[in-house]
Amino acid sequence: MLRVPEALARVLEHAAPLPVAERPLENCLGRRLAADVWADADQPPFDKALVDGFAVRCEDLEGLPKRLRLGETILAGQVPSRPLAPGEAATIMTGAPLPSNADAVVMVERTAPGFDSVEILEQAIKPGMNRLPRGRVYRAGDRLLEGGVELTPARMGLLAAAGASRVRIVDWTRSAVVPTGDELVDFREVPGPGRIRNSNALMLETLLARRGLASWTSPILRDEADVLRNGLKRALELDVVLVIGGVSAGQKDLVPATLRELGVREVFHKVRIKPGKPLWFGVGPARSERPPALVFGLPGNPLSGLVNFLIFVAPALDVLDGRPARGLGILPAYSAVRLEHRSDLETYLPVRIVDAHRTPTAPPTVEPVDYGGSADLASVVRADGFLVLPDRETTVEPGEIVGFLPLD
Amino acid sequence: MLRVPEALARVLEHAAPLPVAERPLENCLGRRLAADVWADADQPPFDKALVDGFAVRCEDLEGLPKRLRLGETILAGQVPSRPLAPGEAATIMTGAPLPSNADAVVMVERTAPGFDSVEILEQAIKPGMNRLPRGRVYRAGDRLLEGGVELTPARMGLLAAAGASRVRIVDWTRSAVVPTGDELVDFREVPGPGRIRNSNALMLETLLARRGLASWTSPILRDEADVLRNGLKRALELDVVLVIGGVSAGQKDLVPATLRELGVREVFHKVRIKPGKPLWFGVGPARSERPPALVFGLPGNPLSGLVNFLIFVAPALDVLDGRPARGLGILPAYSAVRLEHRSDLETYLPVRIVDAHRTPTAPPTVEPVDYGGSADLASVVRADGFLVLPDRETTVEPGEIVGFLPLD
Repeated sequence: MLRVPEALARVLEHAAPLPVAERPLENCLGRRLAADVWADADQPPFDKALVDGFAVRCEDLEGLPKRLRLGETILAGQVPSRPLAPGEAATIMTGAPLPSNADAVVMVERTAPGFDSVEILEQAIKPGMNRLPRGRVYRAGDRLLEGGVELTPARMGLLAAAGASRVRIVDWTRSAVVPTGDELVDFREVPGPGRIRNSNALMLETLLARRGLASWTSPILRDEADVLRNGLKRALELDVVLVIGGVSAGQKDLVPATLRELGVREVFHKVRIKPGKPLWFGVGPARSERPPALVFGLPGNPLSGLVNFLIFVAPALDVLDGRPARGLGILPAYSAVRLEHRSDLETYLPVRIVDAHRTPTAPPTVEPVDYGGSADLASVVRADGFLVLPDRETTVEPGEIVGFLPLD
Repeated sequence: MLRVPEALARVLEHAAPLPVAERPLENCLGRRLAADVWADADQPPFDKALVDGFAVRCEDLEGLPKRLRLGETILAGQVPSRPLAPGEAATIMTGAPLPSNADAVVMVERTAPGFDSVEILEQAIKPGMNRLPRGRVYRAGDRLLEGGVELTPARMGLLAAAGASRVRIVDWTRSAVVPTGDELVDFREVPGPGRIRNSNALMLETLLARRGLASWTSPILRDEADVLRNGLKRALELDVVLVIGGVSAGQKDLVPATLRELGVREVFHKVRIKPGKPLWFGVGPARSERPPALVFGLPGNPLSGLVNFLIFVAPALDVLDGRPARGLGILPAYSAVRLEHRSDLETYLPVRIVDAHRTPTAPPTVEPVDYGGSADLASVVRADGFLVLPDRETTVEPGEIVGFLPLD
């Protein structure tokens, strides 16, 4: 059976960035830009007023206060009809283009406007004041953003201003969530005898949603070869397939065989991890435009699926997204208790932080919460994270430093 | 003119948590639970097999290895038809209910199964082994989650398992983004003379989306009283209204007057902040089911809108969401340069970090990026954050500690 880092290495060696696709800008928040974006025009595209007031020629304003004749009024969205005549000012609004020979804008608050003239009050005036010259923000041909950056709100705004209404990105991951099992009913229903509600699909959908990924969830597939074959076939058109259940050693665990039949090559089955040991991983058949689907067969126990997602699926999603895979972010913590670990499985034990008032930089002290095993999702909502025990027997003494995976 | 903390205090004193609403669970990721949730049934609802194997009575297994007769087969989703007879085992799959008198499950890997009997190999066996007893995760009537917690994927899964398919939450904020101005064209279009693309709406939509909030964006409203009145009227049905543009002192700055006409009470206009000084804030007319809309009139310059959103809108969104308002998270940094600050406006200056290889705990050293003023969104995408200068004249010496607001 593979150790956790070995299994993760197998997953990552089958993951590759998704192809670059041109997508509407408004759908690209959080995505990676795939190529540099260059400005198609100067920004601003004209000399622009930064305040409401009066466009002037500074040479007319020696020895303030001084009165200027009022020419035209230029609103935002309009264009001046002519240059300023000597001794003339144009009424101008924030964002409007300056007349070609105006070199400053005087704020309305520093003037005394009249009917057909305006008095410019005493103040320091210099060319360029309250004027954003054409091309000051960027010039046509400037590189606005480098390929590889993540599209944040400010960068989205910059691209919108530059008219990059479609952008080339590393395409987003299309994921399928496929709940299987005769025992499952929709979580909106009351389960009959021997049945339980399907809670894993919603958990996996929201784990994906937290990473900015929409997903397609299949109907619950019954444990019958035909039903599984049809449902899984559709899922294999997507990039990542999270099949829930049917991967243990039971008589009705038809998922691995059905996947193989559909051309999914098994990479590994079972990992030395607890919870989550029955994890199955394979790679789908070749596709023309996109890399083969990564297929995860997750155990049906909710905590197993959660831990498998965090450890194996999440880093693969990073790679598909064109990023380096990020690990789990395990931090040091003190164990509050003695733990006798008699297992060769790397073990994730739900724990809570018991010293809430510690300083922010000191490792927290943690103790296990009441835990009913991998089906016990209630334990993890009482927990602040997992204490990580190694894949060999060991004894942790109280006060010993251990690995701690915080959960949000 | 109000100082920044005074203006923020005015905003927050008009913000109140949104009413509690019952919503479908699947739409509630990231929301605050408004009331405790109690279990309606035991979990698991029956004694459940944790592995594939054989349900046994431990009293039959003294002196292993030992052979047991095979009775019925119990698949997940089925129910046993009868208790085990003495000396009998039932074939059982992970997740299936145990016969009423079975007290353990032996893993298939630790048996030698035959046609109508199974040999239980030598091993330590104790009652409860591989069995999750009914109610072990929680019992009917247990409190599953406390009101006030945020709905994470694990908590969503727990609620789905418990059949809480509709939950009472602090309702999500409904926001309107309302771009105004004759100079604006859709960002997908090529602007004519004197025109620019509307980039702010997309930036604000994505700032909201980053906080898990969908928003409604109005068409671009022209600077005409009728057009503004109709567009703003519809926006005032929502909880937060972000109007862009039309709040300066210009002849076409009709937004404040139109809002007043629609029953929006002005709380303040202009703040001692740069960029973002023209900010207008008011409170909409009373509504029957929800608190009055919070109406922000944001300046049209993109950097002004960004800074105003981070400083004034984001903390208000926290309050609407039933959380304490969080501030900006300003950290210490060293200024790389001398800065002569001759202004009584609290100033947010785009800066970049210049010592990339510092230790994680040492404050970074920052220097201003090339900056064309509040219309220069390009500066902020080159920047790592803002250096914060106070609302009074000061000189910062090289190496002096300053406030730094990191941007992601």
